[in-house]
Amino acid sequence: MVLSAKIPVGDLDVYDRQNFGNQSGFGMAPALLIVDFVNGFANPDEFGGGNIGRAIEATKGLLTECRNAGIPVAFTRVVYADDGADNGVFCMKAPGLKDLTEDALGSQIVNDLAPINGEYIARKTQPSAFFGTSLQSWLTAKHVDTVLVTGCTTSGCVRASVIDSMSYNFKTIVVTDCVGDRAIGPHEANLFDMEQKYADLMTSSEVMRRIAAI
Amino acid sequence: MVLSAKIPVGDLDVYDRQNFGNQSGFGMAPALLIVDFVNGFANPDEFGGGNIGRAIEATKGLLTECRNAGIPVAFTRVVYADDGADNGVFCMKAPGLKDLTEDALGSQIVNDLAPINGEYIARKTQPSAFFGTSLQSWLTAKHVDTVLVTGCTTSGCVRASVIDSMSYNFKTIVVTDCVGDRAIGPHEANLFDMEQKYADLMTSSEVMRRIAAI
Amino acid sequence: MVLSAKIPVGDLDVYDRQNFGNQSGFGMAPALLIVDFVNGFANPDEFGGGNIGRAIEATKGLLTECRNAGIPVAFTRVVYADDGADNGVFCMKAPGLKDLTEDALGSQIVNDLAPINGEYIARKTQPSAFFGTSLQSWLTAKHVDTVLVTGCTTSGCVRASVIDSMSYNFKTIVVTDCVGDRAIGPHEANLFDMEQKYADLMTSSEVMRRIAAI
Amino acid sequence: MVLSAKIPVGDLDVYDRQNFGNQSGFGMAPALLIVDFVNGFANPDEFGGGNIGRAIEATKGLLTECRNAGIPVAFTRVVYADDGADNGVFCMKAPGLKDLTEDALGSQIVNDLAPINGEYIARKTQPSAFFGTSLQSWLTAKHVDTVLVTGCTTSGCVRASVIDSMSYNFKTIVVTDCVGDRAIGPHEANLFDMEQKYADLMTSSEVMRRIAAI
Repeated sequence: MVLSAKIPVGDLDVYDRQNFGNQSGFGMAPALLIVDFVNGFANPDEFGGGNIGRAIEATKGLLTECRNAGIPVAFTRVVYADDGADNGVFCMKAPGLKDLTEDALGSQIVNDLAPINGEYIARKTQPSAFFGTSLQSWLTAKHVDTVLVTGCTTSGCVRASVIDSMSYNFKTIVVTDCVGDRAIGPHEANLFDMEQKYADLMTSSEVMRRIAAI
Repeated sequence: MVLSAKIPVGDLDVYDRQNFGNQSGFGMAPALLIVDFVNGFANPDEFGGGNIGRAIEATKGLLTECRNAGIPVAFTRVVYADDGADNGVFCMKAPGLKDLTEDALGSQIVNDLAPINGEYIARKTQPSAFFGTSLQSWLTAKHVDTVLVTGCTTSGCVRASVIDSMSYNFKTIVVTDCVGDRAIGPHEANLFDMEQKYADLMTSSEVMRRIAAI
Repeated sequence: MVLSAKIPVGDLDVYDRQNFGNQSGFGMAPALLIVDFVNGFANPDEFGGGNIGRAIEATKGLLTECRNAGIPVAFTRVVYADDGADNGVFCMKAPGLKDLTEDALGSQIVNDLAPINGEYIARKTQPSAFFGTSLQSWLTAKHVDTVLVTGCTTSGCVRASVIDSMSYNFKTIVVTDCVGDRAIGPHEANLFDMEQKYADLMTSSEVMRRIAAI
Repeated sequence: MVLSAKIPVGDLDVYDRQNFGNQSGFGMAPALLIVDFVNGFANPDEFGGGNIGRAIEATKGLLTECRNAGIPVAFTRVVYADDGADNGVFCMKAPGLKDLTEDALGSQIVNDLAPINGEYIARKTQPSAFFGTSLQSWLTAKHVDTVLVTGCTTSGCVRASVIDSMSYNFKTIVVTDCVGDRAIGPHEANLFDMEQKYADLMTSSEVMRRIAAI
């Protein structure tokens, strides 16, 4: 995978020697998970920047393909109570999050990826798409075995969601051109970690070829 | 924090501008969490290497101090069933994990940090100390408000545990000299991510001063 | 407890002999949990009936007392997506639940118990107030050690929430006159089960005396 | 279902009128869950009694059938730490539970149902088979859509496990002759609650016919 050039050679050696970085594979029943592609994370003046805009753009095509193939689609939004009743430690670390309330522009899914009927939208207050949501129950109801993860940020809510997805024993695919981050260093470092330990990395083109072959 | 020099300046700028990296603080009722300091992760020929040995060494002093202060202590071990019945996606990515069974030498907590009566030991099969364990229930019973995280690896089970600790609204402290990783690049990149978004970073000396002041 | 007369004597004997039904006690930091006291469960033509109306009435006084004492208050509502995207097995068993959408009259908290600023409202799709919500995180943030459970139905969402509250190691109190059910048989049978295994039973008067004494 | 005669007619009326008690059905990929059929719950002098012995007997045949059909099998045991480090509120309500430690005779699965290689054994400290265990992850790995619940007690760990199974959106079947309780009143009351709201009730004969037809 092209990004590994950024990781010191010695680091890669030890992962190879200890037999990390194997493929967990692509199952027969994927779902598409779109993490936090909301206006606030599309906007460099709020929580956006870096390659997030490009990732949203790339996700448009993948979303269309998934819908055409009848693949279940789930979204997450960060949503806090208007009165701040559910603000917690995450809001201490990043106080701007408090503004992402139900009706705030910043917490609406970007127009280009607007959900359609029957797609699941998880409101969350923590990094992982699974924490304090019904995502796991929804995936079980859909008989999913593979989660295709897109969204932002790679080093934040994508990474947290990938850990949980893998922990629940879903084969987990990070779609490399469909995840983005406000800064490229953490984006790449987290792709490295996830590939070594939790998920397979695939481009959206590769994913679309796999979907076509199911 | 000294490690930030390794992160490109542009990356730091955007985190500052978006108001990440604030302190969540140190509460009144800490617990010490020691993640996966087992023989297998102390041994560079299994899952160890890098600065893990130094982190174990530094944790000895902190553990003694916490015990003296009456602070609750919890450990994690990675433990899979002897017959592999609970092997899952994590074991596909890193097949060596399967060898960490109940009686394997590699899954025993290192002698230097051997638990004593009344300390909680969570057996886990996933990265987070909270996933599929009773850690959250145990912390609730102990009326804990702050989790001091030590262990390994920084880019693996420490990071995953920190995300969950913060998601459960514990003030979360990563004790920088008491966490280690098999490779230094991911160690530093993950300290950066955690400080920006999930946890405060403190050295064991600072933590011990805080404990003395409770 | 007065209800036990309804349980055959032989049944009580075995519980006594096996040492069930001990008190877990009342801690120093209670929270009040009000489960599903929404219009739909107050209305006998929807999901209500039995002693639910009386339980709502009794909860008014307890809620006022808790607010005056500065005790954290949490509510639950059953809320499904307008398009049914998150309907699952629960909605197969009881299809009427699907109508409890965000803006439906039936899913609004009853006027008499309307939440005020800073009180936590969990939207849920399953019986337990903890399942797929941030209730556990919220209680941790509030440093709670005891959960006072009111609401409906005793044999449904109250019982499920009590099991989880106890499993998370909160001392759990079922406030007997503040929980209600559409039918009295299951109400009493579930109070019996909860007292034997999961929670202490107290009247709202007793709870208010305890609160006054904290 | 025959037990309903024990529930006052007025109670049944309201459930019918409010459209509870519908069937959620039997899917294509069942797993067998055997809850707490350990020596301590088989012994009337510890936690047993009532119809638990008969339920164990009936489960033998179902277990054989499931194994022959290649259906995944999971067991639970109650296991507390030898030093009591993980004893919590449940052990306050029922102090005898503390004796169920890893090597105690009382916490071993009964000989008649001894697990074989590849079957999952969840060690748990709380009522639900899902709480603090990896059961949900294991079921996901096995692509299960239906959970066949057997074990004891009907009014305790079976009921708690059924609520979680349904909450995770598994079609859930309580196998009526394969669940038992120390007292018959709570056994029947809980079968009633579960059928109305969470699960379908089937005898082991019916389940075996369904399995044969998959």
